[in-house]
Amino acid sequence: MEKAVRLNEDQIDDILGTLTHWRLKDGKLHRELRFADFSEAFAFMTRVALVAERMDHHPDWSNGYSKVTIDLMTHDAGGITRKDVDLARAIDRIAGSGGSAA
Amino acid sequence: MEKAVRLNEDQIDDILGTLTHWRLKDGKLHRELRFADFSEAFAFMTRVALVAERMDHHPDWSNGYSKVTIDLMTHDAGGITRKDVDLARAIDRIAGSGGSAA
Repeated sequence: MEKAVRLNEDQIDDILGTLTHWRLKDGKLHRELRFADFSEAFAFMTRVALVAERMDHHPDWSNGYSKVTIDLMTHDAGGITRKDVDLARAIDRIAGSGGSAA
Repeated sequence: MEKAVRLNEDQIDDILGTLTHWRLKDGKLHRELRFADFSEAFAFMTRVALVAERMDHHPDWSNGYSKVTIDLMTHDAGGITRKDVDLARAIDRIAGSGGSAA
């Protein structure tokens, strides 16, 4: 697989303009989502897990009951790459299709 | 459902003597597990999610690739209760049956 190249600050700024649910936190793409309950939250996580596995690129994430917190970076590249942006967009599509993400 | 009663320090010390994979961290029961890869880690999480939902008691947890970190406390009670101990034991059974948890 092609090695992902770390994006520079200008590139990340441009991308954040289009990723409205995400912000930069500790050098990672960060999003927090709130669902109706644990079942809805974990159903969302399961869909994201399948996409992440298919992309061979995985989130750092946490869950407490109805809340899911996601941080994306490419550990190999030591920063944010196209892979993170692609995964962020995939996550947004899943969150949007469920209709319950805040 | 019966409201869970917060355990005192002596009770928690006694329980930690029998929960060898767990320690006390920031007032919660804490365990870290390492799996072969993301697929194994998330498969474990899925089994724990089903048990948690059935128990109506849910973990605070995080995952990054093959690592899963779990913190258990009863938010309603402001501390550790029997529910946390029961969930910890259920998690240990799931981790043990998979054979890949470290």
